[in-house]
Amino acid sequence: MSTEGPGEPSGVPWQDAQTEWLRADGQCCDVVMSSRVRLARNLAGFPFMPRASRADRRQILDLCRRKIVEIPGRERVVWVDLHTASTEQRTILVERHLISKQHARGKLSSGVGGPEEPRGVAFTSQSERLAIMVNEEDHLRIQSMRAGLALAEALAAADQADDALEATVDFAFDRRFGYLTACPTNVGTGIRLSVMLHLPGLRLRNELDKVKRAAAAMSLAVRGFYGEGSNAVGDLYQISNQTTMGKTEAVLLHELQNEILPQVIEYERASRRMLATRGGAVLKDRVHRSLGVLRHARLLAAEESMDLLSTLRLGIVLGIIDNIPERVANALLLLVQPGHLQRATGRPMDQDHRRGARADLVRTALAPYC
Amino acid sequence: MSTEGPGEPSGVPWQDAQTEWLRADGQCCDVVMSSRVRLARNLAGFPFMPRASRADRRQILDLCRRKIVEIPGRERVVWVDLHTASTEQRTILVERHLISKQHARGKLSSGVGGPEEPRGVAFTSQSERLAIMVNEEDHLRIQSMRAGLALAEALAAADQADDALEATVDFAFDRRFGYLTACPTNVGTGIRLSVMLHLPGLRLRNELDKVKRAAAAMSLAVRGFYGEGSNAVGDLYQISNQTTMGKTEAVLLHELQNEILPQVIEYERASRRMLATRGGAVLKDRVHRSLGVLRHARLLAAEESMDLLSTLRLGIVLGIIDNIPERVANALLLLVQPGHLQRATGRPMDQDHRRGARADLVRTALAPYC
Repeated sequence: MSTEGPGEPSGVPWQDAQTEWLRADGQCCDVVMSSRVRLARNLAGFPFMPRASRADRRQILDLCRRKIVEIPGRERVVWVDLHTASTEQRTILVERHLISKQHARGKLSSGVGGPEEPRGVAFTSQSERLAIMVNEEDHLRIQSMRAGLALAEALAAADQADDALEATVDFAFDRRFGYLTACPTNVGTGIRLSVMLHLPGLRLRNELDKVKRAAAAMSLAVRGFYGEGSNAVGDLYQISNQTTMGKTEAVLLHELQNEILPQVIEYERASRRMLATRGGAVLKDRVHRSLGVLRHARLLAAEESMDLLSTLRLGIVLGIIDNIPERVANALLLLVQPGHLQRATGRPMDQDHRRGARADLVRTALAPYC
Repeated sequence: MSTEGPGEPSGVPWQDAQTEWLRADGQCCDVVMSSRVRLARNLAGFPFMPRASRADRRQILDLCRRKIVEIPGRERVVWVDLHTASTEQRTILVERHLISKQHARGKLSSGVGGPEEPRGVAFTSQSERLAIMVNEEDHLRIQSMRAGLALAEALAAADQADDALEATVDFAFDRRFGYLTACPTNVGTGIRLSVMLHLPGLRLRNELDKVKRAAAAMSLAVRGFYGEGSNAVGDLYQISNQTTMGKTEAVLLHELQNEILPQVIEYERASRRMLATRGGAVLKDRVHRSLGVLRHARLLAAEESMDLLSTLRLGIVLGIIDNIPERVANALLLLVQPGHLQRATGRPMDQDHRRGARADLVRTALAPYC
């Protein structure tokens, strides 16, 4: 594995790269955008983040970065020092789901910290399948992503990176509890399994609350597009395990992938079938109107555009729209977001100008499929 | 003048004919769709409508019809017996503003009567500029219409028809009061002058109430698209005089055409200028979104489509849309209405099917201007 220098990863084709969660292929990709596995790890002999001084953090950062470089692997790795990165760069990393919002801000959940805190992220620049955040809530957060429903593959890749790191550094580990983490909910395997789902059918049929209640009963969290505390935009939801202790990775994975998700996926598919038959004309109208607004609007807010794109994607998946590739709708879901939009236009903009630029970008992207 | 037989005026190219109020030319046609003059007349020696028996009505109808035929004129006249016309035919006549809703139903304002009451309408089939309703609220209601602001021309044509009729029949007339009418508000000249205005600028800037209050203070009525008691759809409003007695035709006309309307027209134009400058981007967005929905929707309700077409027309008048002729938007304002829509599709439809057929019709009409 090799890394680039800190600062802007100039070689990354930001606007064109399909992040894994938007590739629109893989198992059950009509409903499951992507699968993600995250492992929380901490270095032995260093205080956990909430108690780490800036000097500690800097030391942790330097050590981790060096170790990450040593991981063997064919894909080029980009390293970004977030404390020196621009706001726009950090926003783009959040939008691509390579770092958390919290990591972008540099604040711990306690509110301590700020943008100047030493922290960074490494990720495989081509596929963006593997990302390792350094000095987020834990010293290391290894994140592995796959398109579609593929938690086992994502887990295998995360484990591989984890093993490679563990071969050269000591992780904080307790024989009884397992891996030790800053937040007790992560102690044990330190794992979070999550899937990003596209659930427009359930939303249109007002069935989402049922899913949320069922998920809560099974100790699963249903979160919005950007994870904790964020709203659902574009009908995109993340479902993940809430606790890690007392269950092996294999059990957690089996429960989610084989017991819970098939039900949610089937529920969403049934909703779509219902919409396509009983309210077929209404759904068709809604899909085409969304396309009409996307094609003609001169001002578009981020959330509205994501909701319209969500309905468009539903129409494409259901065959109501047959001349626009799904990847176009998926790519736009990313490109309409503020950071990507700003980069595409090449200049900082206020919200009003962004709305105009966003509408222009969407119109241009859809123009070939008239 | 010659007339066709009763029943369906099969020679009238209903769908293509531009009624005068949609021709989109004439003075101030950016704001004034059309000008209309209506004269109320009654035959001497017959009871007024509220007291007329069915036998009286039949006699009045026969006499009037015969006399109307004798009016000299070059344009072919269509006669329709409304008591034998289909509901669809009557609806179309209402939508073309050739008869009132009340006349279509055959009911007097007191609620007496019904569809079988002997009554009819004669109109010039090509231009639809002149229409004479028989046995509406009065025995005769002569209506003359012109595109744009042209009350004097409309009045001259109405007077001409009035004079021609008066040469062969005796009208109920009192030396002191003038022409006698069923409703006292029409006694005197029996005249109503009205203009159909397109006021999207005032509506978008929430200034319509001011116009309504000012109009009321000047004894003018502001009514919706179909006249008395109807809602404004498509931002179309009719402004007319409320009383007739004590003022000559010339005075009424002068007040409306030279004193009041110039102010309303300028007020609307100022609103549009304001929208185009201060909120230019917002207006542009709204116009294009309306076009987007019109071009893509698969279901359209009548009122929604008229509102969208109204915004589209505003966009065309302001030059925001430059590839769609105004006459297309205007023609659609007529064609999306239930009667015309039903005739275009050639079969009776329930409301759901009408919404689908309406969307199809609009899409087809706008397709050449992509």
